[in-house]
Amino acid sequence: MLPVAQISAFNPPRRILMGPGPSDVYPEVLAAQARPTIGHLDPLFVSMMDELKQLIQYAFQTKNEMTLAVSAPGSAGMETCFVNLVEPGEKVIVCRNGVFGERMRQNVERVGAIAVVVDNEWGEPVSVPAVEAALQANPDAKFLAFVHAETSTGALSDAKSLCALAQQYGCLSIVDAVTSLGGVELLVDEWGIDAIYSGSQKCLSCVPGLSPVSFSAKAVEKLKNRKTPVQSWFLDQTLVMGYWGNANGGKRSYHHTAPVNALYALHESLRLLANEGLENAWARHQAMHLSLRAGLEQLGLKFVVDEAYRLPQLNAVYIPQGIDDAAVRKQLLEVYNLEIGAGLGALAGKAWRIGLMGFGARAENVALCLKALESALK
Amino acid sequence: MLPVAQISAFNPPRRILMGPGPSDVYPEVLAAQARPTIGHLDPLFVSMMDELKQLIQYAFQTKNEMTLAVSAPGSAGMETCFVNLVEPGEKVIVCRNGVFGERMRQNVERVGAIAVVVDNEWGEPVSVPAVEAALQANPDAKFLAFVHAETSTGALSDAKSLCALAQQYGCLSIVDAVTSLGGVELLVDEWGIDAIYSGSQKCLSCVPGLSPVSFSAKAVEKLKNRKTPVQSWFLDQTLVMGYWGNANGGKRSYHHTAPVNALYALHESLRLLANEGLENAWARHQAMHLSLRAGLEQLGLKFVVDEAYRLPQLNAVYIPQGIDDAAVRKQLLEVYNLEIGAGLGALAGKAWRIGLMGFGARAENVALCLKALESALK
Repeated sequence: MLPVAQISAFNPPRRILMGPGPSDVYPEVLAAQARPTIGHLDPLFVSMMDELKQLIQYAFQTKNEMTLAVSAPGSAGMETCFVNLVEPGEKVIVCRNGVFGERMRQNVERVGAIAVVVDNEWGEPVSVPAVEAALQANPDAKFLAFVHAETSTGALSDAKSLCALAQQYGCLSIVDAVTSLGGVELLVDEWGIDAIYSGSQKCLSCVPGLSPVSFSAKAVEKLKNRKTPVQSWFLDQTLVMGYWGNANGGKRSYHHTAPVNALYALHESLRLLANEGLENAWARHQAMHLSLRAGLEQLGLKFVVDEAYRLPQLNAVYIPQGIDDAAVRKQLLEVYNLEIGAGLGALAGKAWRIGLMGFGARAENVALCLKALESALK
Repeated sequence: MLPVAQISAFNPPRRILMGPGPSDVYPEVLAAQARPTIGHLDPLFVSMMDELKQLIQYAFQTKNEMTLAVSAPGSAGMETCFVNLVEPGEKVIVCRNGVFGERMRQNVERVGAIAVVVDNEWGEPVSVPAVEAALQANPDAKFLAFVHAETSTGALSDAKSLCALAQQYGCLSIVDAVTSLGGVELLVDEWGIDAIYSGSQKCLSCVPGLSPVSFSAKAVEKLKNRKTPVQSWFLDQTLVMGYWGNANGGKRSYHHTAPVNALYALHESLRLLANEGLENAWARHQAMHLSLRAGLEQLGLKFVVDEAYRLPQLNAVYIPQGIDDAAVRKQLLEVYNLEIGAGLGALAGKAWRIGLMGFGARAENVALCLKALESALK
């Protein structure tokens, strides 16, 4: 073991991040994050938080009052939705078509609730008819939970139809938008989503570590009428909202110390998104996907997901026979400083995941990736 | 509401942070945090994580294998200790002499366990004889939980004696070291602490948002022999350790996306601590406290906590009669960019909390604070 006094400062190389996240971070975001730390109850910080809330509302396209950033990564955002809304013994329809649907199921079980799983093959979207059948068969279900954009496969599910079904059958919808937010159309209020969480490190191109979340008025009502306390003190939104305001006539009370500099970074990344405009960002992701797709197909690579429900920001392709997965990824990293993602779960060793997320969805990244893959596959 | 496209970049002022945390962040730490984001499974990032683990072990003075940084603030570190170790129905002796002991009690109740509270007045340390009486009266208690350095009052408790008692009575000890780590003597292995958590934003002078934690072999044994699953998926250390290594022959498996840049920052702040040397850092905090104390006493201010168990890094003083709490703090902030802390809980409106933490424990800060207070109290 190296004596600790001899450990040097860590100087990471400049990578081009085209995996499943973290994505390339905007230089402006890194600069924002390095600004001087101020107190988490400083009036100027509180003004920044007010703007940040507006920016999160914009990104989600919602007017929900309970909209904020959880002080922890997307997995904690997922847990925030489940522990606050779902009570022990309640029934949740959970759609599983990849790693993150399975993680939802585990969250449901850990709150002592009952998960009814609707399975789809990895690479397929969630089946709307199968969900309707499950809702019909389980009239006592209180929630429908699904992943909008499955990061493990690159499949996009039809959130609008699924949320309409949830409403029709009297369920609250809980939606994972970790990889979708900022990359593809997502309209929280228009689609009637009740609880949604995302992550900072995907199409927002912010540093990893924060999870934007939003709860509809119906979800807040459910939270307020809980019979049991929220099992997590840290994630209890009835307490957290005391700090994010609105709970107490605008007065902010201490809950935990906010991750001040990370919130500067999120503010900046969402500001850049608002300046570009959501629709423009969605169109840019799609255009870059089409360009990448053309090149990947020229290289003879096959997509895991059908184009009809393929995420532009997460391109999963099968690794050709006879190609050494790890050796190719190592070569890309060492020769070109280019990171692409390995397969996860059922696709481990079988697919690569090429991300085009946020600041990473640029023509220069597409060109580099195609040329580098071409050379590695020779 | 401001149209979001008109929101400007946030440019915080340079404050001098002498509240209860966040403390003044080392410029080197802000610079480290702004370095390029790389993948959380990048081999170079993994090497940095190995060093970070060593640095956390050094700061805690422990060889515990299960030593890592939770990807969330100190409150989540607290919850990590309780949800992983304590099972429903188990009995925990909880010492309460301020806000954070009470938060421990709430954590115990939220895991469905039984809290036996040992109360001491705010500003007093935890009473060792009272704890021994509680241990005698509760032979079925499995844990003793206490706060080493109460941030709400500035009282230091005798962690060494309390942990010795825990061992004598067959209990595991759970220790809050959020404000003590790096500021006063803390010897995890020598004192036999079983589970400990801290925060990045106090005497480590790192940005807020991370919680270093460590579990003894006995604590790991308890975790491995749980009869029920850990109620939090995000904080489940049996899963998290798969990413921090050691669980799987050194191979790291994905759990959640690590807060990459925040971990750069923690690495740098702990490296600076290791370079200074722990004992030197403790001595510097004490020297700065004595200097601040002399000046505060000259101004006629009285300490909340007796010198015998007063934290050098958190100086709580009563607000003199006739002085407007908020107006003084506002003046310090607006005229001098100086933040001192308000009272919390039972001390709200009655005391100020002046922090001398990490990089903030410097002669220039002490001088500024004394001169600024002198002018505000005139």
